[in-house]
Order: sequence, then C-alpha cells, then structure tokens
Amino acid sequence: MSGLTHFDKKGAAHMVDVGGKDVTEREATATTSIRMAPGTLQLIQDGDAKKGDVLGVARLAGIMAAKKTADLIPLCHPLALSNVTVEFIIHEADNRIEVQATCKLKGRTGVEMEALTAASIAALTIYDMCKAVDRGMTIVETKLLKKTGGKSGTYEAS
Amino acid sequence: MSGLTHFDKKGAAHMVDVGGKDVTEREATATTSIRMAPGTLQLIQDGDAKKGDVLGVARLAGIMAAKKTADLIPLCHPLALSNVTVEFIIHEADNRIEVQATCKLKGRTGVEMEALTAASIAALTIYDMCKAVDRGMTIVETKLLKKTGGKSGTYEAS
Amino acid sequence: MSGLTHFDKKGAAHMVDVGGKDVTEREATATTSIRMAPGTLQLIQDGDAKKGDVLGVARLAGIMAAKKTADLIPLCHPLALSNVTVEFIIHEADNRIEVQATCKLKGRTGVEMEALTAASIAALTIYDMCKAVDRGMTIVETKLLKKTGGKSGTYEAS
Amino acid sequence: MSGLTHFDKKGAAHMVDVGGKDVTEREATATTSIRMAPGTLQLIQDGDAKKGDVLGVARLAGIMAAKKTADLIPLCHPLALSNVTVEFIIHEADNRIEVQATCKLKGRTGVEMEALTAASIAALTIYDMCKAVDRGMTIVETKLLKKTGGKSGTYEAS
Amino acid sequence: MSGLTHFDKKGAAHMVDVGGKDVTEREATATTSIRMAPGTLQLIQDGDAKKGDVLGVARLAGIMAAKKTADLIPLCHPLALSNVTVEFIIHEADNRIEVQATCKLKGRTGVEMEALTAASIAALTIYDMCKAVDRGMTIVETKLLKKTGGKSGTYEAS
Amino acid sequence: MSGLTHFDKKGAAHMVDVGGKDVTEREATATTSIRMAPGTLQLIQDGDAKKGDVLGVARLAGIMAAKKTADLIPLCHPLALSNVTVEFIIHEADNRIEVQATCKLKGRTGVEMEALTAASIAALTIYDMCKAVDRGMTIVETKLLKKTGGKSGTYEAS
Repeated sequence: MSGLTHFDKKGAAHMVDVGGKDVTEREATATTSIRMAPGTLQLIQDGDAKKGDVLGVARLAGIMAAKKTADLIPLCHPLALSNVTVEFIIHEADNRIEVQATCKLKGRTGVEMEALTAASIAALTIYDMCKAVDRGMTIVETKLLKKTGGKSGTYEAS
Repeated sequence: MSGLTHFDKKGAAHMVDVGGKDVTEREATATTSIRMAPGTLQLIQDGDAKKGDVLGVARLAGIMAAKKTADLIPLCHPLALSNVTVEFIIHEADNRIEVQATCKLKGRTGVEMEALTAASIAALTIYDMCKAVDRGMTIVETKLLKKTGGKSGTYEAS
Repeated sequence: MSGLTHFDKKGAAHMVDVGGKDVTEREATATTSIRMAPGTLQLIQDGDAKKGDVLGVARLAGIMAAKKTADLIPLCHPLALSNVTVEFIIHEADNRIEVQATCKLKGRTGVEMEALTAASIAALTIYDMCKAVDRGMTIVETKLLKKTGGKSGTYEAS
Repeated sequence: MSGLTHFDKKGAAHMVDVGGKDVTEREATATTSIRMAPGTLQLIQDGDAKKGDVLGVARLAGIMAAKKTADLIPLCHPLALSNVTVEFIIHEADNRIEVQATCKLKGRTGVEMEALTAASIAALTIYDMCKAVDRGMTIVETKLLKKTGGKSGTYEAS
Repeated sequence: MSGLTHFDKKGAAHMVDVGGKDVTEREATATTSIRMAPGTLQLIQDGDAKKGDVLGVARLAGIMAAKKTADLIPLCHPLALSNVTVEFIIHEADNRIEVQATCKLKGRTGVEMEALTAASIAALTIYDMCKAVDRGMTIVETKLLKKTGGKSGTYEAS
Repeated sequence: MSGLTHFDKKGAAHMVDVGGKDVTEREATATTSIRMAPGTLQLIQDGDAKKGDVLGVARLAGIMAAKKTADLIPLCHPLALSNVTVEFIIHEADNRIEVQATCKLKGRTGVEMEALTAASIAALTIYDMCKAVDRGMTIVETKLLKKTGGKSGTYEAS
C-alpha cells in the first residue's frame, strides 16, 4: 500500500468512496500566475469591453472549467459546486497577472481540484488570447492557497 | 485595434477565421513541472502497475485533455489531432517531475494550446493523486517549448 | 453595482453563491414555438415510428439538452435534475408547433434555464430535421411560462 | 419516403451520409432577438468590463455553443468550424437586442445549425444574466438569415 | 515492444500518429445483441410513436454515442464522421434484438471503435428503458462485423 | 400504458420523476467479458507499467465513462457518484478477461446504468488497445450482477 488514496491494495486506480464522509461546507482557493513581456501586460491593461477584454474571457473560461473538473481529472468525483469566482491581481513589478480561483460546495469531498483547474484554464486562456504577440509567456507557481472543511480541516500554503 | 487577434475592430471576442490558411503539418511541444516533497517523489517512483501507477493515470489524463481543448479554451478551434504524446522526466535534484506534451495536426491552425492543456492537466492529475500526502505540491514553469508549421513558422523557447 | 446578480461589486462575472439557499422543490416550465410552411407541418404530422418521427427525436434532444445546461450557460450551476419532460402542442391554425419543457429539482437554485434550454434545443432539432424542405421555419416566443419554489416564489407569465 | 433527409426509407432516423459531397466553403448567418423591459436594456447598455459586461458573456457563450452543436442536435455531423462570430445590435425602439451569429467551414455539410445554436445560446445567456430583474424577457424570431455554399447554393430569408 | 500500437517503446500509452496515413474512405459495421424475456420483447414490439418507441430512443442514443467515441475511448482520435446508421433486427426465435451500427469517414484512421460504441450504447439504452420490467436482460456477442478502407484493408468476421 | 417507466401515458419518452423517492445508499455491480485469441491474452498479461498496461488504461476509461452515463443514456438522471471501481478477472481457461464495475451513490435513483456503462467502455477500450493484433475479439455476457438500495430492493443475477 502506497499511502496514495486513489489506489486500492492491489495498486488499481479507483474513485475513492466518499459515501461515508459528512456533508460539510467546503471551500478552496488556488492561485497561479502568468508572466509576460511588459508590452503584453500593457495591451491587456488597456483592454476593456470596447478594445478587447482578455481578462473577462479568461475569467469565464476558468469558471466554466471548474464545472468540467470531473471530466478532466480521471478520479475526481462529479460535484454540484455552489459557487465559483475567479479574480485577477496585476503585479506590474514583475509583469505578472495572478489568478485566484475559489470554489465552494456543500458536499462530501473537497474542491481543491476544481479551484486549481479553474485557475489553470484561466491562465491558459490568457496565453491563448495573447500568444500572437508573445509566445514566451510562462505560467508559474500554480498551487493551493487555502482549503477549509472536511475531515482533514484547514490547510494554508506557507 | 489591439494587436490581439482574438478581438475584432470593435473589441468583440471572436474565433479567428482560419479558412484562408493553408493545411500544413503542425506540431507543438509544451512543458510544465510539478515540484513536491522528496517523499512524494519517492512514492511515485516506487509505483508501477502493481503498486499504483500515478504517471500512467496522469499521462492518460493529459492525452484525453488535449482532445477537449476546444471545449476549455473559449476561442480555440475544434481540431482533428493526428497524434498526442505525454512524457515524464524525473528531476531528482530538485524533486520535480517534468511533463512534456506534444501534439500534431495536419490542419489550418496551430496546436500550441492543445500541448499546453495536455501538460497542465497531466500535472494537475499528479497533484490530485498525491494531494492526500502532500498538499504543498506546486506546478511551475508551464510554457511552450517549440512549435513548427503554419505561417508564423518555427518558435523555440529561449 | 448593477442589480445583476451574476456580477460582483467590481463588475466581474461570477457563479452566484447558492450555498446559503434552502433545498426546496423547484420547478419551471418554458415554452417556445416553431412556425413553418403548412406542408412541413403536414409532413411532421404524418410521421410516426414508421415514417420518421420528427417530434420523437426533438423530444429526446430537448431532454438531453436540459442535462447539459450548465455546460452551455456560463454561470449556471451544475444541477441534479429529478425530472424533465418535453411536450408538443400542434397549432394548426397558424402552422406552429409549440414546445413545452418542464424541469424539476430538489435543490438550492432554480431550473428556469434548464427548461428554456430544453425547449430551445427541441425546437432547433425540429428545424434541423425539416430544413431540407423548409429553410424559412422560424422559432418564435421562447419564454418562461411558470416557475415555483425558491425564495422568489412563484412566477407566471402574464 | 417523407422528403425528410434525416430518415431512411423505413422511417429510421440516421445521420445523413455526406461522404460524397464536395468540400466547399460554407457560411451561414442566423439571427434571434430578445425583448425585455426598458430598464433591463438600460442596465445592459450601462454595463462594460467595469460594471458587468452581459453581452461579452453572452457572446462567448454563443461562440462556445457553436462548437457543441453536434453534441446537442442529434443528427448533426461533427464539424471543424473555421470561424465563429457573434454580434449584437441594440434596437432601442422596441427594447430588443438582436443577436447575429455567423459560422464558416470548409467542409462537406452546411453550418446553419451551428449559427442557429450560437444565436440561441447567446440569447439564453442574456436571459440568465438578467432574469433576477426581468423574468418576462422573451426570445423572438430565431431564424436563418443567409447561407452560402454547398449543392443547394445560396439561401436568403425573405 | 509488445505489438500493441497504443504503446511506445517504453510502454507508455500514446495516441498513435496517423498524420502519415492516407485519407481514404473508411467504413465499419459492428453488431451486438440484447437477449430478454419474451414478454419484454413483446412490449418493445408493441411500441411505436404512440405507445413508447424504445428502439427509436436507442437508435438515437447509438448515433449520438458514435460522435462521443473519442471522449470515451482514451486513445481514439477525434473524427469527423460522415455517416452513422443504427439498425435493429428482431430475432424472435431466441428473444433477442440485434443492433447493427455502421459508421463512415473520409479520413486517416478507421471507425471500428465508433461502430462498436454506437452498437453498445444503443443496447445499453434498450436495457435502461426496459430494466423496470426485466433486470435480467443480457447483452451478448458485441463484435466487429466488417471494416473496409485503410492500409490493413478489409476485415470480415468469420 | 406499456409498463415501461420511461414513457408517459401518451407514449412520449421522459426522464422519470425521482423527486419523491428517498435518498438511500444505492450500489450496483455489472459484469462483462471480452474473449480473445490466446496470444492476445498473453500480450496483455505480459504488460505492466513498463511494457504497456492495457488493463490500467481500460480501468481508467471505465471509471471516467461511469461519470458520463447521463450524457450517453438519454433518459438517465445526472448523478453525483460517491464511488466507482473497475476490476479485471482473467479466465485463462477460455481466454477471457472479465470486467466487474461497481458504482455507489447516496441518492434518489439507482446506479445500474453507471455500472453497466463503466464495464462496457472498459471492455471496448481493451478492444481498442489490442485490435491491431486481434480484430476478432468479442464482448460477451454484459449484465447486471447485483444491485442494492431503493424501493425495488436487492437484485441478484441468477
């Protein structure tokens, strides 16, 4: 036995049985950042509903991706998310847009993967929308910031 | 006009018209890495079809995600990929698993987003399978390594 | 702040937090109609399982579309619908087939969008099946007929 | 035989064989309109990336829905769309937002259903975003405006 | 090397590169059968558009499933099917409904999996529709009947 | 009325209303088998994470398919499965691999179709991975082994 919950005693992958877990309020926030050329960041900041709203498109892509997590991550449970938000924080000092995605659920399993998926797809969408002017953009530091609820309780990134 | 091809002159998002582009052989390779605690890397390396094959599951998740790219990235074209591969390179020195995803197509538009999506979802799947033992795993440095084909020709990350 | 619940204070789209709402029985019925040439209506009415059952196909398409609503409408919550029905009412006087779709749920948010999506896709399927003989078919008057349950209570179209 | 191409001689539904059709440039434009209370239209017109961009969300929903058409309309062929655009025209005189969706393809079958689906889902998304303030909004006059290409040639709504 | 084309030399699963294969007309027919109690078969045979058309629903489910094959079978290529048909043959002698599904494509890879998936999901849908009266129904003998086209040429089940 | 619960009194297909059913623990196990040439079975048995793990890929495909059941079987309810496992039993005597899939749910409707779909897609994936060496593989005897929970109680295949 490996300590990895997604495998049974014989090493076969399975969807963990969460039927015996309590229904609790669960919440998770993930973060990622995409670094780019200064001119690319400027283009995005100039954008709005009139000139082309890169972050509006990326936010929607992230929210919709959260709903597809169980389709993408093979052993994730299908979940009825009660809330998804995606926020952007612009760090001009190092030409970086940070994405913070938060998901909530009243259910039997956590929503960390939903938050991480939302943040990742939002960042990939920024890449897609700007790749014609900056193919060198790099997505850095995708990680779980915080999660609450469930048997394992609260986790916060150090 | 912003220089961003995914917006028209009025700033409205649209799926770029690729009908006039040539059908050429296109290929893209993306890379990402997931850093973890040394014990987590050890668990994964010990795994195999008998004990639990984390990388086998992650590889499949990446390949299947490449096929869903147009569902995830709002302005991507639906594509008939001719080839998808996902490879893992273990960097023991810094407790990191690198994911390299390569996609190919004979078509009218590039496959960079497919390769980036495959690599990202494979890394997220590693996170999912190991999160019970290591919630601090971090996905770093997701970027395009190389692409060939199409009007803009070859790009290689510096 | 705009009064539109799908935006936060800064104008960013988000999936509304329904975690605090009560689980109640919710139901919604939507209607739409498709108008066509008299001969097209005749063709459909002549059809049955032997000659080609246009409405049987459209009904199924509507039911299946209700289940995809959260995939289609960006800020809709994923829901575990308990019931979906799609009915057709033929109005010979004005060569029109009315579609009525009803969805039910025990849950934290309403099912208006599910009913509207089911009705719309059923009507579009009728269009698809008959377009070879009548490209001028027009879908008219898609609207919510009635909804019950939830904090806002009962609504009925006037 | 009924004249309906989606049924075979015995009345069984089938996906029409398009293997023998020519690959031609095909294009279709569909229109729909959503009528609402004057105050609702005002709210939408006031919106932008800062206050809540209803039409930006609806446009994206329409574009993404075009790519899902073969999933929604049972007998549609899966298509590699080369271009999708969704435009909004505000008719203040009758408190109505018109949606025009255009799809293009180099392929063996037309894209009318893709354009109609994009327009319909964009209109339904406007409904979803504004339903908290105006449940009586009505989607009117969904139809094909124009299509070109293919054996049946050009069609224009009268 | 194992002889299994879906693995590379190191045993890693991959989507086979079909970019170098010729575009040819490809066709495949699969068969399956579902055996049931005599009374269940009678119920289905009595059905039509008036009483409940089990086979009409199953046929549509099979056609739609063919379009989802690349989503279901991990290493299948996404394909633009040109034709899908699903037929039923009733064998009263042994209380069995046979499903025959045929798929066609002009493309670089075969459509065996699409035909097998269509037949299987059609049979499972018959099970679903009748399980309330006959849980013992059994799906037997799912196999490829015939395929043509491609480098490996024609195959016919013996 | 036909005795088939998926049709209403007029013979129209509908998704059965389960809103009034109790939330109980429900579980179902389905079985199927794929028969093959002795050499094909040997190839699969030789495989592991190093040489190509056919059963590992098939297991994952089955688990992921269980989550897509409501997308595939037209009148199935969308369900929040709490557990999915897929096991393989090798019967060397008749060159057959048996697939057993088990699904669990705390909910208002049974999970028989989820278990049957998981088993079927796992078997089809084995076919896909080995078809280059053995096109004659046949899937036999797909059926429900056992189900518990719900008003109709326990069922076991005789």
